Amino acid sequence: MRATGFGVSAGMSKPMAIDLATSIDDDRLRPFLPLVYVAWSDGELAPEEVTGICELVAGYSGIDEDCQVALRRWLDPLDPPTPQELEALRLQIAEWAESLSVEAAGSVVELGVAIAESTRPGAIVTGDEMSALADIQTEYGPFGPVPAVLGGPIRLRDLIEPAAPFDTERLTSILDGKHTRIRNRMRAVLTRPEFAYPDQPDRDAYRELVLVWTRILADEGLGVLSYPEPHGSGDPASFVVAFTMLGHHDLSLMTKFGVQFGLFGGSIARLGSARHHDEYLAAVGSLALPGCFAMTETGHGSNVRDLETIAVYDPDTDEFVVDTPNDLARKDYIGNAAAHGQLAVVFARLIVGDADNGVHAILVPIRDADGTVLPGVTIEDNAGKGGLNGVDNGRISFDHVHVPRAALLDRFASVDDHGVYHSDIPNPDRRFFTMIGTLVGGRVSVGAASVNVAKSVLTTAIRYAHRRRQFGPAIGAETLLIDYPVHQQELIPRLAATYAYHFAFENLISDYADQEGDQRKLEAEAAGLKAYASWHAIDTVQAAREACGGQGYLAVNRLTSMRADADIFTTYEGDNTVLTQLVAKALLSEFGQQFESMNATAMARYLFHRASSTLVEASPVTLSTTDSDQLVDAGWQISQLRWREAHVVESLAQRVKKRIEVGTEPTEAFVQVQSHAATAAACHVELVTLEAFVSAVDEIGDESVRRALDSLRALHGMSVIRANLGWFQEHGRFSGATSRQIRKVHQQLIQEVAAYSLALVDAFAIPEQVLAAPIAAYTND
Amino acid sequence: MRATGFGVSAGMSKPMAIDLATSIDDDRLRPFLPLVYVAWSDGELAPEEVTGICELVAGYSGIDEDCQVALRRWLDPLDPPTPQELEALRLQIAEWAESLSVEAAGSVVELGVAIAESTRPGAIVTGDEMSALADIQTEYGPFGPVPAVLGGPIRLRDLIEPAAPFDTERLTSILDGKHTRIRNRMRAVLTRPEFAYPDQPDRDAYRELVLVWTRILADEGLGVLSYPEPHGSGDPASFVVAFTMLGHHDLSLMTKFGVQFGLFGGSIARLGSARHHDEYLAAVGSLALPGCFAMTETGHGSNVRDLETIAVYDPDTDEFVVDTPNDLARKDYIGNAAAHGQLAVVFARLIVGDADNGVHAILVPIRDADGTVLPGVTIEDNAGKGGLNGVDNGRISFDHVHVPRAALLDRFASVDDHGVYHSDIPNPDRRFFTMIGTLVGGRVSVGAASVNVAKSVLTTAIRYAHRRRQFGPAIGAETLLIDYPVHQQELIPRLAATYAYHFAFENLISDYADQEGDQRKLEAEAAGLKAYASWHAIDTVQAAREACGGQGYLAVNRLTSMRADADIFTTYEGDNTVLTQLVAKALLSEFGQQFESMNATAMARYLFHRASSTLVEASPVTLSTTDSDQLVDAGWQISQLRWREAHVVESLAQRVKKRIEVGTEPTEAFVQVQSHAATAAACHVELVTLEAFVSAVDEIGDESVRRALDSLRALHGMSVIRANLGWFQEHGRFSGATSRQIRKVHQQLIQEVAAYSLALVDAFAIPEQVLAAPIAAYTND
Repeated sequence: MRATGFGVSAGMSKPMAIDLATSIDDDRLRPFLPLVYVAWSDGELAPEEVTGICELVAGYSGIDEDCQVALRRWLDPLDPPTPQELEALRLQIAEWAESLSVEAAGSVVELGVAIAESTRPGAIVTGDEMSALADIQTEYGPFGPVPAVLGGPIRLRDLIEPAAPFDTERLTSILDGKHTRIRNRMRAVLTRPEFAYPDQPDRDAYRELVLVWTRILADEGLGVLSYPEPHGSGDPASFVVAFTMLGHHDLSLMTKFGVQFGLFGGSIARLGSARHHDEYLAAVGSLALPGCFAMTETGHGSNVRDLETIAVYDPDTDEFVVDTPNDLARKDYIGNAAAHGQLAVVFARLIVGDADNGVHAILVPIRDADGTVLPGVTIEDNAGKGGLNGVDNGRISFDHVHVPRAALLDRFASVDDHGVYHSDIPNPDRRFFTMIGTLVGGRVSVGAASVNVAKSVLTTAIRYAHRRRQFGPAIGAETLLIDYPVHQQELIPRLAATYAYHFAFENLISDYADQEGDQRKLEAEAAGLKAYASWHAIDTVQAAREACGGQGYLAVNRLTSMRADADIFTTYEGDNTVLTQLVAKALLSEFGQQFESMNATAMARYLFHRASSTLVEASPVTLSTTDSDQLVDAGWQISQLRWREAHVVESLAQRVKKRIEVGTEPTEAFVQVQSHAATAAACHVELVTLEAFVSAVDEIGDESVRRALDSLRALHGMSVIRANLGWFQEHGRFSGATSRQIRKVHQQLIQEVAAYSLALVDAFAIPEQVLAAPIAAYTND
Repeated sequence: MRATGFGVSAGMSKPMAIDLATSIDDDRLRPFLPLVYVAWSDGELAPEEVTGICELVAGYSGIDEDCQVALRRWLDPLDPPTPQELEALRLQIAEWAESLSVEAAGSVVELGVAIAESTRPGAIVTGDEMSALADIQTEYGPFGPVPAVLGGPIRLRDLIEPAAPFDTERLTSILDGKHTRIRNRMRAVLTRPEFAYPDQPDRDAYRELVLVWTRILADEGLGVLSYPEPHGSGDPASFVVAFTMLGHHDLSLMTKFGVQFGLFGGSIARLGSARHHDEYLAAVGSLALPGCFAMTETGHGSNVRDLETIAVYDPDTDEFVVDTPNDLARKDYIGNAAAHGQLAVVFARLIVGDADNGVHAILVPIRDADGTVLPGVTIEDNAGKGGLNGVDNGRISFDHVHVPRAALLDRFASVDDHGVYHSDIPNPDRRFFTMIGTLVGGRVSVGAASVNVAKSVLTTAIRYAHRRRQFGPAIGAETLLIDYPVHQQELIPRLAATYAYHFAFENLISDYADQEGDQRKLEAEAAGLKAYASWHAIDTVQAAREACGGQGYLAVNRLTSMRADADIFTTYEGDNTVLTQLVAKALLSEFGQQFESMNATAMARYLFHRASSTLVEASPVTLSTTDSDQLVDAGWQISQLRWREAHVVESLAQRVKKRIEVGTEPTEAFVQVQSHAATAAACHVELVTLEAFVSAVDEIGDESVRRALDSLRALHGMSVIRANLGWFQEHGRFSGATSRQIRKVHQQLIQEVAAYSLALVDAFAIPEQVLAAPIAAYTND
């Protein structure tokens, strides 16, 4: 029974009479002795926590006064036990522990109970003792595993089971999965001598080299992978995977490849009709016809709907007249424009008669076959960029350029022989989003390629960390970088995240290839994963660069070029920040197709119902757990992220709804909640990514590989949860003790995974010639 | 009085009989009505929180059953009030509020009390009502300021007082402070036409251009600013400031300037004697003698003490023989080595007879005046780097190169005419650290220059955000980027941090210039501020680049070159991660000069005493505050960071101590606690930086400038605290309500500061020609 008064000040008086050595034999103290030992030996309890433990025990009237006095003496911060007294305590506990079974001594608290039960006359642990122990555990945990010095066999490594050395090739085949064939084909092509890296060529030479490389890939038939038969292989997934494998090689090549075959060719394939396919796809796929995807303008990048270039139908000549009405309407940052492009897919407002039908795609020649810029077309070179200098980006403007009516890519809308505009999609908004939606492949591709950039740089940095030594003990070799906790902390959680994203993109690529899937969901997932994977990539390259010190800064090790090139991944194919808002809106729309028309009552009922069903998943015991087994459990981790996503999305919905109700214009309402919306998007992507990782691990048959990846998954889940401990506590989800334990277990997992991190990067199977960094080479050491 | 049972399930039954419109008149409800309104209109309470409020009220037996039923009805998540009912409630509250004084209605809770007291017969608010309101405020805050729609005048903007337009030039003169003269001189020099940026020259041309620029600076007398008279101006602070002003210009120039005059010349000035000064300083300062600072080796960067290059005294010739014993001992990444350097300060182990006296600095010629590499010296070009390609870094090795005995820089140690080694510092460790310590200027300089890099890119990005529009309402102009909350969130807190670092470095530069100051403290502060300021710089450049989208990626806007160049700031002059460990060790040593010899009892007593005195600063009320005035208060913010630093350092000390006590080798003990040590370093730097900001604001006389900077300071303090909300909650320092309120106030401060952010960057007074980014130009728009 809990007593009402605590006697705090009495608790601080100093009971000098107690002899610690003798008091070890006082059987009333036994349940608490392992806790006492850990409290001191661990060195991780603050004085106020030690005092707090005394107060907690003092709150139980069933624990007698003498026992409390002795305990207070043991825990007195002003007069701690000597090392000798502590050692005597340790030896006694270890002796008792030896006689117990392992199962009985899982945690320090359980060890105390087990000792008391096996050594005390009567062998009973009272209810008050149990309650006091449980309280201490809850308030001042973690007191999870029994330290080895107490005779306990349990360290986290053992709890999760040591990662047996596993078969790296087996892991590679799991990672390659159903795309093994195209991945191996790309590995073979890219290791050919033609693909060796040049020594910092000047801009023009670099652009020409990239063109040559792109042609080799076209000759290999890789350019037409995604096009419908008979023009190509009708295999969009393989095209995406081929593109992403270029993420290990030169990223200018990757981008040029994507511009030519993906954006330019892809828009002809998806927005054009059979006539366009017959006329162009073969030449595009062979690179006989280099071209541009001319969407972005100087004035409008993210906001495509408000592009200003116009294509006006001229009934007299039966042509479209393409024009750039002002400087901000110039097409800008267009790949293939500055040097090589001959034909451009131009996104322009289609004006027929008095009607502005909104943005459509139309083919406009910009150079002849000799490379001479055509009349009415003006092209400027974007010149130097932060990276990707092997791609010839440029700025295009049109001065009343005439193209035939057939130049309109007319799958979704056309102008007939009588000069009348037709579309099967009457709603202009829906028509616009349908056209733009067909281009989702770009986001899938850039996101997935980002993951491969991360794999490349982690391979380099983790191999270097297993070779480079610096500082160390007074005697003997210096310490390997990989053995430093701060070094592990920079690299290992990012390695875990990279695996998580890998599996998330494997799912996304499958969804993309599935023509029958939910297009709206695909677009939202692609937007979210592209944004967070590209941020992950540049963050990881930077961490890898710093982890390799001065060597990391040398161009020859390729980290800095990866960094400079991948930087723009966060902007192109959709500004990441704008993408997060798209994701948030998609999440809100899950509340019902007619979110905006839902009345307050219906909304509240829906939200309340949803909140209750989510909350029910976790009992209060779960919320304040310090049990490592539970914290690393896949189901537990998923349930935390699911709860968080649901909670954040619900509160976002409420905020938007309330603003609209009081008359705020919906656009403005969304602007006001942008930060909250970005958080909702992050929560969603974190959940989807962890879920993908969990499913992938579940499917692994090989036991040793499965175990290794399960620890990696546990680490990743823990990283995400740890990064949000403030939020989880704020929402009453975790106690301070749970929060501390999470940080502790996270550290332990990092250390565990670091031990086999070399195998984890080797499994990416990036060919030596492609990785190319001397500091990562296995062959010259 | 608090009742014992809550009746949760009863609380969920639906009291259909209550008519909301009528119940507004029920005077028992009055204290709670403003809360009810805010709970619904704010849209920011989750259903479980609404339920929680009902439960809290139900816990007070002094609030009668009918009142509770009515309240439950108002707050029923399954049947929320209609917009009409809510509007009626709002009108009634506003009417009541109008008759109250503003002071009485500071918060929603106070408003409820005031309404009850002024409108109820008897005008008494009971103790249970007060307690219930206080509980709700604590558990489910923030209910701070009264919303304007309720008639309350209070929004955060008003609480802090709106930032009046202030005099930008006055702010510039505050920022320039006591270094106004040198700053203006540098502005004048760098705007000269010779310093215009080239259009991506090739590497060799770039190196030559940087050499020419460096010579102009030397001709201006800037190279000798720090050297003692009569060789220079004896003004190290001005030299550092001149260097940092180059942080706005080309960073290769800055680095070359630093290598030549700071590292090379500075080591001759500080490690050499009068003889060396007379012979070299004039030629070094005029750039007649370009030279190298040859410390780092391929195998040893951070761990300077274990360098392997040797200088063996040869008594037969009275010379030193300098040699590179193996490939890892080559001097690496050495600036001025690949092309221009003629003389090198080489750090080598000084061997005299059988004795290895550890690392010393010795002058070794590497090229003749014509630029021909001398016999016995081999130089490789480090070739392409991630940035700073205008600096000719190279790798030097020595094959038994003979130099005269006088080549040893002998301020701290010498070899006499009889070939006997002497030093006034007998302890080799102390001698080593004394020599290395004289080089602290490099860290001060690179850290302070990092802040100027951040100022440059923020100027560009914030000006662009005030010009660029994208998306927006259905009718009218698109919205300015600066008006988007997510855009503000990326730029404005970083602007606040940049100001904070500015003031912190102004203090550090003063400490550096003060020859009499505490050298050990200076070294620790320089290490910590350099590490976090350089991380801040690269993080800020990246945020600025993304905030400028595609424009940010164009070389002409200079964000990407800043990013590429500044990257290595995190590594050179000391790897940042290693520096954090240095800081942590310095913090531990504050526990007493003889930390290692302090016994457990003394340590525990000291720690406990220290913890108690820190804890006493804040009462429990403070801990769960949701009062915005308090959260933005300088003293309150400082006290939070001080408490955190003390707590983290104390627990670090305990962990180290305990490990050493159980026999862990001290080096290994420190390795085991590295992550914790890095956190301690971060806490310290955050505290020091905020303190510098607070002091600087206190000293500002101009009221309008002071107000503007005080909001900026409040924002910065809030950013740091917000980033650590998990920790503060975990340690029982903040309630969930405080945590939520901090996030809310942080958002509001960001919005407030964004409104005058343009003036804040203009005050940096970076000349247009130096900033040079077309998107940031005032003149062409």
